[in-house]
Amino acid sequence: MFYIHVLTLFPDFFSGPLDVSIIKRAREKNILNVEPIDIRDFSHDKHKKVDDYPYGGGCGMVMKPEPIFEAVEFAKESCRKKARIILLSPQGKLFNQEMAKEFSKEDHLILICGHYEGIDERVKTLITDEVSIGDYILTGGETPALAIIDATIRLIPGVLGSSQSALNESFSEGLLEYPQYTRPPVYRGLEVPQVLLSGNHKEIELFRRKKALRRTLEQRPDLFKKLELSEQDKKLLES
Amino acid sequence: MFYIHVLTLFPDFFSGPLDVSIIKRAREKNILNVEPIDIRDFSHDKHKKVDDYPYGGGCGMVMKPEPIFEAVEFAKESCRKKARIILLSPQGKLFNQEMAKEFSKEDHLILICGHYEGIDERVKTLITDEVSIGDYILTGGETPALAIIDATIRLIPGVLGSSQSALNESFSEGLLEYPQYTRPPVYRGLEVPQVLLSGNHKEIELFRRKKALRRTLEQRPDLFKKLELSEQDKKLLES
Repeated sequence: MFYIHVLTLFPDFFSGPLDVSIIKRAREKNILNVEPIDIRDFSHDKHKKVDDYPYGGGCGMVMKPEPIFEAVEFAKESCRKKARIILLSPQGKLFNQEMAKEFSKEDHLILICGHYEGIDERVKTLITDEVSIGDYILTGGETPALAIIDATIRLIPGVLGSSQSALNESFSEGLLEYPQYTRPPVYRGLEVPQVLLSGNHKEIELFRRKKALRRTLEQRPDLFKKLELSEQDKKLLES
Repeated sequence: MFYIHVLTLFPDFFSGPLDVSIIKRAREKNILNVEPIDIRDFSHDKHKKVDDYPYGGGCGMVMKPEPIFEAVEFAKESCRKKARIILLSPQGKLFNQEMAKEFSKEDHLILICGHYEGIDERVKTLITDEVSIGDYILTGGETPALAIIDATIRLIPGVLGSSQSALNESFSEGLLEYPQYTRPPVYRGLEVPQVLLSGNHKEIELFRRKKALRRTLEQRPDLFKKLELSEQDKKLLES
């Protein structure tokens, strides 16, 4: 069983997302146990306060260290496996597929969702990783936690069927996926490319490779630069 | 009123996330109207089928064009404003804060959540943008849709208080945030840096700048490279 605890100020956030699609199925198959933990439950304050003013001034509020320390301890004790403790924060390293692979080999993840304008720096003495999902400003770590849960559990054996699993590999090539078409062959005047209906597997493969290369070049020049192109690839791109 | 329609195969996914924190408040203030639309409702198939085998072979299923075309038309008609139509897809451009700003100036966003192994390419004739939130494999566009909703609505006037809004600016400098501390001054032997308790604003500012520079260098060398450092910055980094 793979354990994930999500420390959050908004446990209700997770009620929908953990109950659909592959996360739901992984839980039903007893491969995954994922539980939100309300950080507020660990406040000793009678008003259940979890934030306070920043030392040194500045706008906004900062999440206090005590409730988070205690929530992490609670999560660790409730599982008793070696935990990977991940803080979701705009200051973290950029999450990528390599990290997802690494996380999927663990037994227990504890995800800490930051909020307000920041989190007391001392929380970082607890963590093993500080991770951001991208360069955009979000309200809190809840959406990033979902992204990490989804990307990670897909890689745990048994979560996906074998045909789906294969797809995880294609991305690691660093190339965007080629265009896909399904029935009907003509829809509102828009036709499926003839080659895909031809049954000529060699031609189909070349068509797809060319489209994947072109798309990567156009949409993600940063990824394209890292590709090692074969002679055939170069010819396909020129044609 | 800012309208967002989210076209999805998993409308239940959104029940929690749209009902907490700033999205909830923006809805209560009547600044935001966000509605999931079930793509399956637009299937004409008696089994409510929304996917089919890919032309040209390959593993996995592809989302059919018809239900998506009709769901987009429904969303457009139900609002009658010029819509920005965004497909969430691993093949899209990388979402960033600039895009969030652009989207926040619209009146109506239609977000299409891809799923299964892909989506019929002809759907792309409908869209204005194809967006990915990062280089990791997710099950569908639902989590990316949340990231885009969150990052975008934070920038709509009235959604955040004025003190929070200011924070949106700090990130656009391209520097990670400095460390934050709040009470208590000593927790489990961990002390708040003396300078923050000193009341010396000049020193505090220098301390924070130095920490922000160092953190950006260590965590995000890619962002650090793009910074234009002042003479003072260079001295701070050397010290």
